[in-house]
Amino acid sequence: MNAHASQYDTYKRLVERSLSGFVRERAPRSLYEPLKYVLDGGGKRIRPVLLLLSCEAVGGTPAKAVYAGTAIEILHNFTLVHDDIMDRAGSRRGRQTVHTKWDTNVAILVGDELLALAYRALLKTSSPNIQEIAKIFTEGVVEVCEGQAYDKEFETRSSVGVKDYILMIDKKTAKMVAVAAEIGALIGNGSRSSVLALRKYGEYVGRAFQIQDDLLDVIGNEQELGKAVGGDLVEGKKTFLLLEALRVARGRDKKTLVEIVKNNGGSRRLFSTYRRIYFETGAIDAARRRIEKDIRRAKRELHKLPKSRAQAMLAWFADMLLNRTY
Amino acid sequence: MNAHASQYDTYKRLVERSLSGFVRERAPRSLYEPLKYVLDGGGKRIRPVLLLLSCEAVGGTPAKAVYAGTAIEILHNFTLVHDDIMDRAGSRRGRQTVHTKWDTNVAILVGDELLALAYRALLKTSSPNIQEIAKIFTEGVVEVCEGQAYDKEFETRSSVGVKDYILMIDKKTAKMVAVAAEIGALIGNGSRSSVLALRKYGEYVGRAFQIQDDLLDVIGNEQELGKAVGGDLVEGKKTFLLLEALRVARGRDKKTLVEIVKNNGGSRRLFSTYRRIYFETGAIDAARRRIEKDIRRAKRELHKLPKSRAQAMLAWFADMLLNRTY
Repeated sequence: MNAHASQYDTYKRLVERSLSGFVRERAPRSLYEPLKYVLDGGGKRIRPVLLLLSCEAVGGTPAKAVYAGTAIEILHNFTLVHDDIMDRAGSRRGRQTVHTKWDTNVAILVGDELLALAYRALLKTSSPNIQEIAKIFTEGVVEVCEGQAYDKEFETRSSVGVKDYILMIDKKTAKMVAVAAEIGALIGNGSRSSVLALRKYGEYVGRAFQIQDDLLDVIGNEQELGKAVGGDLVEGKKTFLLLEALRVARGRDKKTLVEIVKNNGGSRRLFSTYRRIYFETGAIDAARRRIEKDIRRAKRELHKLPKSRAQAMLAWFADMLLNRTY
Repeated sequence: MNAHASQYDTYKRLVERSLSGFVRERAPRSLYEPLKYVLDGGGKRIRPVLLLLSCEAVGGTPAKAVYAGTAIEILHNFTLVHDDIMDRAGSRRGRQTVHTKWDTNVAILVGDELLALAYRALLKTSSPNIQEIAKIFTEGVVEVCEGQAYDKEFETRSSVGVKDYILMIDKKTAKMVAVAAEIGALIGNGSRSSVLALRKYGEYVGRAFQIQDDLLDVIGNEQELGKAVGGDLVEGKKTFLLLEALRVARGRDKKTLVEIVKNNGGSRRLFSTYRRIYFETGAIDAARRRIEKDIRRAKRELHKLPKSRAQAMLAWFADMLLNRTY
């Protein structure tokens, strides 16, 4: 492991310690048992680590940002629990989803409580900017909901383009990554221009991250991912890949893809055919180019910050996303 | 209409104006159309009016508290939308519930967004106490979730007593009424003792309100309520009335009630029998006495405040709850 990776791990453990000590309640059991199950589920903890790094990159101490990092991770888990209900997802990170292991009512309530606990964590932050921080956090939640609404709308709408898709992931994924970076910078008392640069860095990185996610659903390794690939295709999710391939494909391949849209989902049996079309239409390459472009832009924003270990780590972090396999 | 009632109406309209102008977004339509439907649904607006009155009762101007009032009303609507999913409720205030008119996914997302919008409204408040206010608000949300979890747990748990029930409604209903009063007092820069008195006033009033709600589900008028009576019985909800009647009833009546518990719900056909048992076991009277006691306690808290029109209105408000028929 290189120095950056080991430092990432240190920050990740810092967040996880805070997370695991954060919820002390035990009763009602029907609420707190599944809630702790969710928070124990692991994950890459990308958003909170990014938040800590952003705080450090403007000269703040990461410790000051741990509560906000905890908040952003709890919030992320809220979105996962509710999205999994809406997407009828059976597993997540190699474990049963809450609505599968318990039931939908439990999952609704656990999500709601997670959202409240995210605010509880955030509001422990000591900062003269706390009202602005809480506002930015809240606008992030609003956009996450809007993004999820678009995502579900697109599933049954036939005319969706790559542009619509980008709007959707900007709201559903990129915004909250940007919020993490921005809040970290605000807690670190960064200058206006540093705060803005880090927010933009987060937007680009977040978008790249989501397109990479779509890509991994097609070319990823099931063991590494901890879930079956092809889920997006089976569900008929209008990902960057599907929309780009639809735009380019002709003849029988086009028909195959149009069938996915028509039937609100593809056939798992045809997964290798879909994958071949994605490669042959250049959709895979287009996605990779798009990711590379956003990562380049993200790193350009970092030039606006003073040189520091945290700044170098943020650059490394962006590159790592580009090369991630899970 | 007396002067208090007319003043109540003025405050209610103030809140409703703020509410109806608060959500300007239109897209994604699948989110904002049902969301506006919810906020247009009317209601008594008890919590926000109470918040405004509490602000005034400690010497603040109600206008300063309108955003927080809007927040508490939006939050209340969030709980209704999600509770209606969990309770499989088909109608509310004489209109279809969101998950019935649209679907469960929409209702989950609308509820989530309402919770975010509640924070958006709250955070527009200008107060040196804003961090404390937001913390109190958040603890209210946590307890509302806990209360709802207990409520659902009790539905399938056979051994529930009146004490458990009081704990549940203290969390599910009373806490948020107390939060409304406390936040109003904080925005009005009330003294510690005034803030505490108003919080306690809210707790008592909120509890009385919920027991009255249970009572109206049995002895209320369907036209005035805008919903069918007996819903709690059909669902097997362990209300104050059911638990008290279970404690007292003997013989065949006891058996009838135990059947409700055993089957996780009663028969609509037997509603008049259940009602007779509630009267004959004294459960109806016990509920009324309990409500009267809490209203008395609530009004006693008001003596700790300086005399004012708002203080008199809060006393009137408590009495009004006692006599409400819808």
